Amino acid sequence: MQKTKLENLKKERREKMKKVEPRTLPGFMELLPNEQILFEQMKQKIEKTYQRFGFLPLDTPVLELSEILLAKAGGETEKQIYRFQKGDTDISMRFDLTVPLAKYVAKNYGNLSFPFRRYQIGKVYRGEKAQKGRFREFYQCDIDIIGDGELDIINDAEIPSVIYNIIKEIGFDDFTICINNRKILNGLFENINQKENSVEIMRIIDKLQKIGEEKVKEELKELNVEENSISKIMEFIKIDGTNDEKLEKLQNLNIENETFKMGVEELSQVVKYIRIFGVPDANFKVDLTIARGLDYYTGTVYETFLNDYKEIGSVCSGGRYENLAEYYTDKKLPGVGISIGLTRLFYKLNELSLMKVEKYSMADILIIPMLEDLSRPIELASKLREKGINTEIYLNNKKAKTKFKYADKLKIPYVIAIGEDEINSNKLNIKNMETGAETAASFDVGEIIKIIK
Amino acid sequence: MQKTKLENLKKERREKMKKVEPRTLPGFMELLPNEQILFEQMKQKIEKTYQRFGFLPLDTPVLELSEILLAKAGGETEKQIYRFQKGDTDISMRFDLTVPLAKYVAKNYGNLSFPFRRYQIGKVYRGEKAQKGRFREFYQCDIDIIGDGELDIINDAEIPSVIYNIIKEIGFDDFTICINNRKILNGLFENINQKENSVEIMRIIDKLQKIGEEKVKEELKELNVEENSISKIMEFIKIDGTNDEKLEKLQNLNIENETFKMGVEELSQVVKYIRIFGVPDANFKVDLTIARGLDYYTGTVYETFLNDYKEIGSVCSGGRYENLAEYYTDKKLPGVGISIGLTRLFYKLNELSLMKVEKYSMADILIIPMLEDLSRPIELASKLREKGINTEIYLNNKKAKTKFKYADKLKIPYVIAIGEDEINSNKLNIKNMETGAETAASFDVGEIIKIIK
Repeated sequence: MQKTKLENLKKERREKMKKVEPRTLPGFMELLPNEQILFEQMKQKIEKTYQRFGFLPLDTPVLELSEILLAKAGGETEKQIYRFQKGDTDISMRFDLTVPLAKYVAKNYGNLSFPFRRYQIGKVYRGEKAQKGRFREFYQCDIDIIGDGELDIINDAEIPSVIYNIIKEIGFDDFTICINNRKILNGLFENINQKENSVEIMRIIDKLQKIGEEKVKEELKELNVEENSISKIMEFIKIDGTNDEKLEKLQNLNIENETFKMGVEELSQVVKYIRIFGVPDANFKVDLTIARGLDYYTGTVYETFLNDYKEIGSVCSGGRYENLAEYYTDKKLPGVGISIGLTRLFYKLNELSLMKVEKYSMADILIIPMLEDLSRPIELASKLREKGINTEIYLNNKKAKTKFKYADKLKIPYVIAIGEDEINSNKLNIKNMETGAETAASFDVGEIIKIIK
Repeated sequence: MQKTKLENLKKERREKMKKVEPRTLPGFMELLPNEQILFEQMKQKIEKTYQRFGFLPLDTPVLELSEILLAKAGGETEKQIYRFQKGDTDISMRFDLTVPLAKYVAKNYGNLSFPFRRYQIGKVYRGEKAQKGRFREFYQCDIDIIGDGELDIINDAEIPSVIYNIIKEIGFDDFTICINNRKILNGLFENINQKENSVEIMRIIDKLQKIGEEKVKEELKELNVEENSISKIMEFIKIDGTNDEKLEKLQNLNIENETFKMGVEELSQVVKYIRIFGVPDANFKVDLTIARGLDYYTGTVYETFLNDYKEIGSVCSGGRYENLAEYYTDKKLPGVGISIGLTRLFYKLNELSLMKVEKYSMADILIIPMLEDLSRPIELASKLREKGINTEIYLNNKKAKTKFKYADKLKIPYVIAIGEDEINSNKLNIKNMETGAETAASFDVGEIIKIIK
């Protein structure tokens, strides 16, 4: 009796306590378990592919000194940063994985082997305006290849083959890796005496698909680009045909500029080697309008589109940069890399029901004990686990119906119910929860595994 | 010429630029690649084991509303929190994975299936005083089983079998999972009329190993515990023998208290089922001095020690709690769980050279091209990757010696150098980098895989 009174008192206390409404910050993705399982599968496919190409894992802190993180930043990025003071220290949360990489390579230069090939999958933070499909905390999945002083152009051709393998793994066949080289554009601008405007012009060109040809011309005019220079630019970005035809047309433009020529030569090399790396022509294309809206890239640039879902935008972008860590070291560290914005990509694919699912549940089998003595059910679960089968055992005293409903809700594909009958007869039934079919088996683990595989 | 001038100008600009010294915040672990590989292996072993038992993945935000995170906190924890204002929002970084779990379960109660079994592996933040081996950012690897209203005691016996499997996986045989039940202690204190002091008394008992018996007695005396009550406490905590003997002695104390009896009954159940779950008696023990220095736990408690390295402290701790989310909901949500402080554990094992290593490098094979045309080397790399072999290809134009040194530094176990001779003869050599032995093979992928496995 005393116990019941105590329990009641506690319950009362609990209910009287003022509750804090459980909620998650807007712009922060928090999934239900069945979605989280799909998210993890996607993350793992990306990670496995990165590892397959021999990239080394890296895990840098989420927090860095603001002085480090903001050495370069400015404008929009800086405004979005989560920055705060702790004691005397001015701290910021990382907003990408590139700046921490730059710091890391500069800091550990003497201890790294070059080319330094690393992958990093981690959360980054941007206090953006909250809106649907925009996240303030999101995963980036990056690879970069960093050279010491120099880095062969062939590395720029390996990157698309990583992209190719990942997008295939994620479950798409119809996608295009768009490739360009910023030297071509820069050389063209030098050639038409628009070098000082080149960053701005590239920003405008970059919007071609979004705003159309006329708008682009208009914006160029507003920039005081001469009429005949605009024509040249438009003629250039409208070069079309197969990849090889485009390269030929580029060469035939006869633009007498070293940067331009180097760009065309690099792009030709990249196209040649991409094929050797096994990327079919159907999955990549030279796209002279791709410039990436950043003045960070200096050579090859990539964007990747799912052809049936272009509204998602580029699912994997990146490029070649001249100098990774100039804010931290005198060492010249050229590199090439890509980034996948996993959180947004998952959100979009999930929204469009495009997730390729390997399995919906974490457990492969749920064992449901239907008797007092749990020894045999537990023993079977342990044996299955030893053989690498994810096995859950329902350990609470509920009605059989409740237990099966649990398996159903969790989408666990197989259920084995074990009662006195099963133990006495040494026979059990494996229920396929999708089809409802039951298959007889003994308690032999090998036999069970054969049935569920 | 123009290009060289430009290059020189750029170089000059780079060198003149004021550099920010690349550094990492103190208390934040940042590993070199060869250590990071070991860290990832350990993390993956833990994750795989959690999955093997059917725990569902969860990934909650690093940032939460301070109101949520601090609903319960106070004292030391609160002082250590990274907390800041962004716009109008009072935000904190999570300091453990339990409070976010409580929020999550309260928030998603209607969408979860109970018992809700989740694992979460993620970084948490505590602005502790910086000192060697103490981290401000560290991984916790948690599992919890949450019941809706009730949760069978057998769940408390499954948890140690998860611990057992993980510690074995990590490479240790000689370890002890210490188990106790706080109801036993609470009941004892009720029985000797020390209930109001129970939290304080348990804190003191918890220090037995650290400060010794006399000191414990002294501190109890300072708390105004009566002489004969102290004797009873000491008699109690000195109960020894095998696990079964201890349980018997507990029963034989004939303490007429419901809580005490329930504790002994629960502990007996847990011990009975731990064995059925396959944990050998050598790896667990009833330890009546374990109380966990937290007033959070209400039943079973666990601590785990590597017997040869007790100085590391408990590597995996946890227990049963009565109510996970009382600050957010009226629902009664009892649970049982554990946490592994991965960052600290890795740091200690690495320091003591106790890491069990599966592989030291990410790549299984490095292909070194020794010729102009890279087609055949790249093709071989692609084929090996298709077969699941992590393969790197050295893509920069360096001397052969440099390329082999690279493999050596990265500890890549096998190297295949491919030059004109290899291609003309259709024969290659697989060099085992550890032994220096070379094995002849053709370009056939199956043959190569057989040799390196």
